[in-house]
Amino acid sequence: MILTVTLNTALDITYRVRALRPHGSHRVSEVTERPGGKGLNVARVLAALGHEVTVTGFAGGATGRVVQDRLKATPGVVDALVPVTGATRRTIAVVDDRTGDTTQLNEPGPTVTPAEWSAFQEAYEDLLPAASAVALCGSLPPGVPVGAYAGLVRSAKAADIPVLLDTSGEALRRGVAARPDIIKPNADELAELTGSHEPSRATQDARRRGARAVVASLGGAGLLALTPEGRWRATPPAHLHGNPTGAGDAAVAGLLSGLVEKLPWPDRLARAAALSAASVVAPVAGEFERGMYEDLVDHVTVTGDVTAA
Amino acid sequence: MILTVTLNTALDITYRVRALRPHGSHRVSEVTERPGGKGLNVARVLAALGHEVTVTGFAGGATGRVVQDRLKATPGVVDALVPVTGATRRTIAVVDDRTGDTTQLNEPGPTVTPAEWSAFQEAYEDLLPAASAVALCGSLPPGVPVGAYAGLVRSAKAADIPVLLDTSGEALRRGVAARPDIIKPNADELAELTGSHEPSRATQDARRRGARAVVASLGGAGLLALTPEGRWRATPPAHLHGNPTGAGDAAVAGLLSGLVEKLPWPDRLARAAALSAASVVAPVAGEFERGMYEDLVDHVTVTGDVTAA
Repeated sequence: MILTVTLNTALDITYRVRALRPHGSHRVSEVTERPGGKGLNVARVLAALGHEVTVTGFAGGATGRVVQDRLKATPGVVDALVPVTGATRRTIAVVDDRTGDTTQLNEPGPTVTPAEWSAFQEAYEDLLPAASAVALCGSLPPGVPVGAYAGLVRSAKAADIPVLLDTSGEALRRGVAARPDIIKPNADELAELTGSHEPSRATQDARRRGARAVVASLGGAGLLALTPEGRWRATPPAHLHGNPTGAGDAAVAGLLSGLVEKLPWPDRLARAAALSAASVVAPVAGEFERGMYEDLVDHVTVTGDVTAA
Repeated sequence: MILTVTLNTALDITYRVRALRPHGSHRVSEVTERPGGKGLNVARVLAALGHEVTVTGFAGGATGRVVQDRLKATPGVVDALVPVTGATRRTIAVVDDRTGDTTQLNEPGPTVTPAEWSAFQEAYEDLLPAASAVALCGSLPPGVPVGAYAGLVRSAKAADIPVLLDTSGEALRRGVAARPDIIKPNADELAELTGSHEPSRATQDARRRGARAVVASLGGAGLLALTPEGRWRATPPAHLHGNPTGAGDAAVAGLLSGLVEKLPWPDRLARAAALSAASVVAPVAGEFERGMYEDLVDHVTVTGDVTAA
């Protein structure tokens, strides 16, 4: 199985309102809820691709129960979330019917105690032997040490399991130093990590900092990959409009599935770029339009050269 | 005991953010949750005044469980909420730290099935004989017939139990026609019911429509009451600033407690006005500053005349 880690899982709630006016009172016309957090989105895409996935991280409180109830109903996904006393955070996306724009409100997440963090680390060590690959995804909840991902990367490497890291800020900086196999920053995260806004230079810098392969997701411009086997750019045939939330998570699922299927890098990147594009047109993160994905995957342009990077 | 009915209970959530910007992404710095819906607020104030209160209405889903868990921890309040398949609605108040202003997002509430509505009506009939007074409070969730309150008023009157109705729009219009003992509209609700923006004329019109007594809550201007025993205006000594949410619910608690204690109308109105003012300075609906209430209650000005209205 593929293991995805989401330390700060979420109950993602979407509200539709006619027009959001600060300091006004709004009747919500439609409410949708789904399990959220990057690693859970990655898991849903992997399961839809036919992979067995186990999800771990933390879940707690009434919101955590809703997340776990929904995961139980997701075929192909095994719930190995670790209980926490605090409540799993909510994220609220308020969609303005007039403009289609979204206003986002993100709760910080439960404070994780040292004992809960230890319990998670034990659960993670127990899950690793059965994993063919690991993805470490998203922000850290309060209480989890900022070096958390570095430790989880080291454990995976010690167990000889390929590990992908998708986070930001200081958690990414510390995690990269532990030498993960792949990182998948977006343009902002890559610039914050390296200080360079020039993607080609920044991916080189990120590799020097410890990442074995860097796959930068550059929105409509596709993916830029710098790996030990070569460098490539994967560009979808058209710029699709829709909801970009979850596009990076779909790309992670593409990279991980390609890795465990031992596809060559260009094929992994074509899959990741096609999944990413096909997720933009799906209404919610963690889903993609299968027909569009199957159309796109053969039409992604992958250019590059196979050189010792 | 006093019975309060809240057909559309809520989990009231308050978020603090630094500055709300439409189409921006916001980190919520503080999250608070409490049981909500007008009748639950009334019940908390009544319990704080030393009355035994039973709350009924609907609760369902994960949010309903949170509401019921919190009610269990409220001394003096007995939970007789009826289960519903849909989830109890959330209301989200987003407080802007810069300005102190609040933006409100209200979910519509669960759709109540005909079988659930019948189950509630049976539960209500079973609770009535033990009640010294009934308050019917707030909006109707989807699926509940718009004439619901009219039926509940009639049942209370048939059981010879005084009934107060605090709702708005068509539910108020239909409910008034069933001749409740008291209605407590605010200025907008009264104007919508009667078509008149002149409170003195509008209260007369509301009585002609069927309300035995009308107590209009006019914000900082206090209460205007038209009853079979006379007409009065109750004015607090000072205009207090704070959170007006729940001020009307505190007034309802004042009126009901005065009714079951058989206080004369001027004393009931002084209590209601003082509770209402003391709730404005409390941080959340359903609470009031006890010291301020005790100071204020002797300083509310009640003017009027005892005449056959």
